Amino acid sequence: METDGATAARLMTEQNRPGLIVVDEHEHPLAILPGSQVLRMLIPRYVQDDPTLARVLDENFADHLCDKLGEKTVRDLMPTERMTLPVVAPDDTLLEIAAIMAATRSPLVAVVEERSKSAALIGAISASQLLGAMLPPG
Amino acid sequence: METDGATAARLMTEQNRPGLIVVDEHEHPLAILPGSQVLRMLIPRYVQDDPTLARVLDENFADHLCDKLGEKTVRDLMPTERMTLPVVAPDDTLLEIAAIMAATRSPLVAVVEERSKSAALIGAISASQLLGAMLPPG
Repeated sequence: METDGATAARLMTEQNRPGLIVVDEHEHPLAILPGSQVLRMLIPRYVQDDPTLARVLDENFADHLCDKLGEKTVRDLMPTERMTLPVVAPDDTLLEIAAIMAATRSPLVAVVEERSKSAALIGAISASQLLGAMLPPG
Repeated sequence: METDGATAARLMTEQNRPGLIVVDEHEHPLAILPGSQVLRMLIPRYVQDDPTLARVLDENFADHLCDKLGEKTVRDLMPTERMTLPVVAPDDTLLEIAAIMAATRSPLVAVVEERSKSAALIGAISASQLLGAMLPPG
């Protein structure tokens, strides 16, 4: 939550991820920060409302757009309506994880050490990884 | 839209993508098929409502879960409420694409040959790729 926005954006782009898992000060997973949300912070509201306005903004404007990311934290970037981030434990079954992911429509589940409200993040499972484990070898 | 569900699921897992862009018979992009939606089709509703039920289902059940994917098409898998898929043209600026992605909260934009309702898909841009192009070199 306290990482600065520029570091978060760079992590997302270097690892080519659609979003990041945000953790609290005890490494417990809290939410997903989607890439589009970082863009929402960068692009002024009046340009989002009318994207054709982007054509008339000068290059100088675009070049300095990212400067403000360094002054923000991930906490500042988080959407007010947070994306659900389901949490699973190492002994949950594939079918159980699939049911949780399907029910919550989440692209990811966070894996924590044990089922408790403060357990630390130890990994993540994407829908495509889970499908890969469930599909018969072909 | 007419690809069978098993082929779509395999494409998603082999390429490790969070979703696929679905096109019509003229290759025009229509919508995103998220991985979690494929899981929704596989996991019975009563198990989604109570994921702990997954623990009591036998292995035979899990093994045959994916069989029905081959009998469905992507059209059958699509959610009734489709995810927005914004479309851009090759001469759109970075700032314009960022504004569109921010406004629609889409993780992807589809790139088509030209701005028309039937233009074919030629590529896609993710939020992380776009951020990577906008961030100053660091």
